[in-house]
Amino acid sequence: MNVPRAALVIIGQELLSGKVKDENVGYLTEQLWALGVEVKRVLFVPDDSQDIVEALRWVVDRHDYVFTTGGMGPTHDDVTVAAVSEALGRPMVHSPSLESLLERLYGVPAGPERTRLCHIPEGAELVYPEDARFPQLIVGNVFLFPGVPSIVRKKFSAIAERFRAEPIYSERLDLDRSEMEIVMPLNAVVESFADVRFGSYPQYSEGKETVYLTLDGTQQERVQDALKLLKKLLGLA
Amino acid sequence: MNVPRAALVIIGQELLSGKVKDENVGYLTEQLWALGVEVKRVLFVPDDSQDIVEALRWVVDRHDYVFTTGGMGPTHDDVTVAAVSEALGRPMVHSPSLESLLERLYGVPAGPERTRLCHIPEGAELVYPEDARFPQLIVGNVFLFPGVPSIVRKKFSAIAERFRAEPIYSERLDLDRSEMEIVMPLNAVVESFADVRFGSYPQYSEGKETVYLTLDGTQQERVQDALKLLKKLLGLA
Repeated sequence: MNVPRAALVIIGQELLSGKVKDENVGYLTEQLWALGVEVKRVLFVPDDSQDIVEALRWVVDRHDYVFTTGGMGPTHDDVTVAAVSEALGRPMVHSPSLESLLERLYGVPAGPERTRLCHIPEGAELVYPEDARFPQLIVGNVFLFPGVPSIVRKKFSAIAERFRAEPIYSERLDLDRSEMEIVMPLNAVVESFADVRFGSYPQYSEGKETVYLTLDGTQQERVQDALKLLKKLLGLA
Repeated sequence: MNVPRAALVIIGQELLSGKVKDENVGYLTEQLWALGVEVKRVLFVPDDSQDIVEALRWVVDRHDYVFTTGGMGPTHDDVTVAAVSEALGRPMVHSPSLESLLERLYGVPAGPERTRLCHIPEGAELVYPEDARFPQLIVGNVFLFPGVPSIVRKKFSAIAERFRAEPIYSERLDLDRSEMEIVMPLNAVVESFADVRFGSYPQYSEGKETVYLTLDGTQQERVQDALKLLKKLLGLA
């Protein structure tokens, strides 16, 4: 499938120690897929500048969009903005509009913490969606989100339409058989439809195995034809 | 903190399109942390051999343990075992014990599918925990799990004690203040305790921001001392 590609860089020690369960991957992958964008990589890294830089360098040139979550606050472990600056080779510059926002919204007193928070990578875009507590920071193809899931949802919704591409058509086929029983017909159809993506997902319930198949593609007719052949080979039509 | 390091490679297109929400990262990170093992990287990749090989090569030499989930079944998209073989440079060899198990347990007829499933990387270890449906495959420092969360739990529990290391001591401090209000005392304590790991997690509820702090370390006394100093600087003790 030739669709826009995205990567997620999920930042936060709390997610790597199991203290907090991530909710952003499920949300972002689902939203992007519905927009016609395919997530090809997800990376979780600790709140460490070098780890984040390494992750970003690994994905930033090979994906149309990169989304980061986490590490956006004022404390010692909030190093995402500086890491994006380093990974993209864009020096940090002072943003007067951000400083005035911080002063007005949070009453942060002048000092090293406020100054640090008002530095952003050169050429960064600040988008102010309606009702947003804080602007959306965009640096090249990197979209920076905080870690808190409710804020990620709000901020992503505000800019989601930027990412809309051709729709991906999906079909699903639930089968009352084990994966082993359907592997031969499935593999035959997979070979005939290089432009359709197939998934096969076994499920276990009360000791019984069933399976469901998924078919995805950008050409609806091809997805339908693949489904038809699959049903035929499985003796369902 | 000088503790054993782990990486997770989470394999499956369904997790990248949001069709299925991953449940294995939360489980494995929490279990490993409780055993004294720190997860330093999590990577999600599609069911594509080259993607899996690339991910494994990125993590396998730099971590004590690598855990993979997904891609272990019989269908076209189950390519994990072959990818581990390629990434580790260990050729695939036929396992007669696996073939006999497949025949007995699943009644899989002789043929190319059964033959494919009975090839494992050279030198792989097959562990047969009690009650297991299928053996645990271990190749060097790579532990291969299927994708289905209930099976991951069962299989991991069976071998968990292998990974037990020195315990990590953790403390948590819930504060009725915003992160911005505690940043200066927090940063001061962080600087004095290089051997303690600090986390700061803002929470939003009904428009109000609160924050909780976490302190982790392998020396209980140092964690306690850091907590004491933090409370003092916050005016709580």
